[in-house]
Amino acid sequence: MNHKGLLVVVCGPSGVGKGTICREIVGRNENVYVSISATTRKPRKGETDGVHYYYKTEQEFENMIESDELLEWAKYCKNYYGTPKTSIETMLDDGKDVILEIDVQGALQVKRNFPDGILIFILPPSLNELKDRIVGRGTESDDVIHARLLAAKGELKHVNEYDYIIVNDKLHHAVSSLESIITAEKCRLKRNIQTVERMCGDDIPSDW
Amino acid sequence: MNHKGLLVVVCGPSGVGKGTICREIVGRNENVYVSISATTRKPRKGETDGVHYYYKTEQEFENMIESDELLEWAKYCKNYYGTPKTSIETMLDDGKDVILEIDVQGALQVKRNFPDGILIFILPPSLNELKDRIVGRGTESDDVIHARLLAAKGELKHVNEYDYIIVNDKLHHAVSSLESIITAEKCRLKRNIQTVERMCGDDIPSDW
Repeated sequence: MNHKGLLVVVCGPSGVGKGTICREIVGRNENVYVSISATTRKPRKGETDGVHYYYKTEQEFENMIESDELLEWAKYCKNYYGTPKTSIETMLDDGKDVILEIDVQGALQVKRNFPDGILIFILPPSLNELKDRIVGRGTESDDVIHARLLAAKGELKHVNEYDYIIVNDKLHHAVSSLESIITAEKCRLKRNIQTVERMCGDDIPSDW
Repeated sequence: MNHKGLLVVVCGPSGVGKGTICREIVGRNENVYVSISATTRKPRKGETDGVHYYYKTEQEFENMIESDELLEWAKYCKNYYGTPKTSIETMLDDGKDVILEIDVQGALQVKRNFPDGILIFILPPSLNELKDRIVGRGTESDDVIHARLLAAKGELKHVNEYDYIIVNDKLHHAVSSLESIITAEKCRLKRNIQTVERMCGDDIPSDW
């Protein structure tokens, strides 16, 4: 079977561990790629342009919006984030699975543009644990932490828009659930219509 | 999380390998049980009452139908097959996953009675390979083989009623796909509404 790749949107509040889960799944599955977003947010310590994000100025980002180069984009905590269209469709057509680790505003845009994409929301084991993780990261100022907590609260309210929920209680459980969702989605009837039609069509042996 | 178990209906034409897949998945997953059907078909060599089927006379089976003891039933190649209700609901309430290996008529009855159940259709790699497997089993008379081939052709026409398709090209692939489907289905939003409501409800910390 020559399947088209799967577009998998992974969302969840800041601090829930999306990035770790996505890196882990890419490390374990050679057919899975994480799309690299463009952003106007400043690089954190250890982040590299073209690896973690494409870092853009506000002017550059707004030019990309105007020339329709983005699959989705959003402004979040005063920074732009977006997914360049380039390469995503090529990867899907090549049968590669593409993971988008984006925020809820972007996820809902992707859902409108790609109804075949699947939306996965990562939940923390509890809200208090999420708060501890955000504060414990220690890379943000108090103002930014407060903004992220408020944003998290807002994102959680959109959880009903998603197809799947993964509770990130243990990393290997969460990664394994995400792998299972990708495998299962490829077995869904709607993604196998051609196989079914080929087999159930006119080519049933005439001597049956 | 205290999930209700999953009702998984596994269908597919005779000879496709449903039974082998189901036995394998039960052997590998202690939370998964295969429901034992009742039938009026005569035991094949090596089959045991209460293990492979509950073997019933036609009169006994018809009494079970009349007293509403069956979740689904069907007549197939002149024999009755059916799923006793006893124990299935108890297992699901206990959080156990229950696999029904039944024919297409029964599957559609289950879908009506249990909309939360999932229907999986096992496809052979090709129709000619299916024919070879049925003939090669060597346990049936020519008449029965012919009837089974015709029934298989009929079953394949209902494949569009199912939620998932698994092509049984290699046993370990098929089993692994079935395991992934079970895991993924448990992550679906509709099966996690309580978790989501509990977390996103009134208990968001007031100091956020």
